[in-house]
Amino acid sequence: MKVGIIGLGLIGGSLGLDLQANGFASSVSGWDQDEQHRQQALELGLVNELAELEEMKQNCELIILAIPVGAIVKVLPQVLDGASKGLTVTDMGSTKNSIAEAVEKHPQRALYVASHPMAGTEFSGPAAAIPQLYVGKVAIICDREKSAEKGVHLVERMYRSLYMRVRHMKANEHDLHAAYVSHISHISSFVLANTVLNKEKSERAIFDLASGGFESTARLAKSSPEMWAPIFDQNKKALLEVIDIYSEQMQLVRNYIEKGDINAMKNWMKKANEIKRILN
Amino acid sequence: MKVGIIGLGLIGGSLGLDLQANGFASSVSGWDQDEQHRQQALELGLVNELAELEEMKQNCELIILAIPVGAIVKVLPQVLDGASKGLTVTDMGSTKNSIAEAVEKHPQRALYVASHPMAGTEFSGPAAAIPQLYVGKVAIICDREKSAEKGVHLVERMYRSLYMRVRHMKANEHDLHAAYVSHISHISSFVLANTVLNKEKSERAIFDLASGGFESTARLAKSSPEMWAPIFDQNKKALLEVIDIYSEQMQLVRNYIEKGDINAMKNWMKKANEIKRILN
Repeated sequence: MKVGIIGLGLIGGSLGLDLQANGFASSVSGWDQDEQHRQQALELGLVNELAELEEMKQNCELIILAIPVGAIVKVLPQVLDGASKGLTVTDMGSTKNSIAEAVEKHPQRALYVASHPMAGTEFSGPAAAIPQLYVGKVAIICDREKSAEKGVHLVERMYRSLYMRVRHMKANEHDLHAAYVSHISHISSFVLANTVLNKEKSERAIFDLASGGFESTARLAKSSPEMWAPIFDQNKKALLEVIDIYSEQMQLVRNYIEKGDINAMKNWMKKANEIKRILN
Repeated sequence: MKVGIIGLGLIGGSLGLDLQANGFASSVSGWDQDEQHRQQALELGLVNELAELEEMKQNCELIILAIPVGAIVKVLPQVLDGASKGLTVTDMGSTKNSIAEAVEKHPQRALYVASHPMAGTEFSGPAAAIPQLYVGKVAIICDREKSAEKGVHLVERMYRSLYMRVRHMKANEHDLHAAYVSHISHISSFVLANTVLNKEKSERAIFDLASGGFESTARLAKSSPEMWAPIFDQNKKALLEVIDIYSEQMQLVRNYIEKGDINAMKNWMKKANEIKRILN
């Protein structure tokens, strides 16, 4: 099957690599609005060939949008406009509500399958693409009842070909869960990095002390602002709510520390330790 | 050389393993107040033999305290009491000021070398001990002018035998840097875990979405409350300051998100991206 990927960075590029390698795609066409990225993706073998959107709509059975969520909202209706019934379109955006709304009334809505593979690294661009980025991770498909059954099966089959586990949920549930688990993790990591950079004037000290936990906790602060700013914007409501709960928790432990209440600190940390049971 | 280690958890146990393996110690004696841990450490080969403090003071050239900082403050003066001039004592505590104060006027103060190896994992206890935990990491020695030169050289030699890089600073500088880099990382990770656990009622959703950045950012929330509560307590002043700066940064990005100011978000994240340059 011919597959088209729009956006050839970490997410789209890694997908292109694996869909060629595992044989799901007989050929992968790619496009990126950045000319240098297009050429780089071709040289790195992330795609077999370059093709513009209209060409993909003629030749591909599946088109995947791997661009920032702000761009998906604009490009997705164009992909659906006048598309043939044989086409399935999916996206890999980290928010789902705004995108769902953007195509809610589109006559070709059924060709679109909303999805989000929960995978990534803190790096970006075609050079960051790696094989097997998706293996063992979870792919979420949203609002399946709004999509043609055939398209849902195709997208499920694609994710399973990458050894992903497929879950279904509503777009609004997805965005709430994503805010509470993934998006706040990024926010807290950016906040940590900016706190340390603003206050700790000694770069040597940061470097020397980084192995004391900072390095892993601040890892996500290396993430792409171009990708994350639109995600935070699109998931504003849920994110403001979770930021407020986060800030309350921070004030709670601040008060324990200020009072020197070691037992309260321990009990509060023991609650946090619960996360071991869920993650392991 | 005979070495004694008090506290046979992750830190002391990993040290015992490596000091035997690299030949720095001809024999490692160990003690832990928890009888089960003592036996486990012996069975796992973290130490060659068990010995109580008074016996170590007779037989060891170097005694290392690898116990929580609240316990170091109590045990260190006992180790120094009546110790012979041939003994060097060091500790591996994550704060240095309170410990320095606890022995400031001690007649044997010069036998003590204040140190902190910047290494660890989120696990604890003898079973968490691993070889080469310290390789390539930084060990900080504080207030060297208050210690006998011979002791400082011995402790430096020990850390270098583990392939650590040795840095020197004042105890109060250490605590400030540690608050700004290491301790706040732990706080923010505990806060993140408690935020998610309080609000996200679906454990399945946490598990499914954890690969979206949560897993690494919340890793430190698995850390031992017994170890960290006394650290936060002893480093109260610096930590309250850094928590307040952290909270300001959180409110800053909250306002950008609320206003939908994508450019301000991007610029703020670009600043955080700076951390790449320092860490890489």
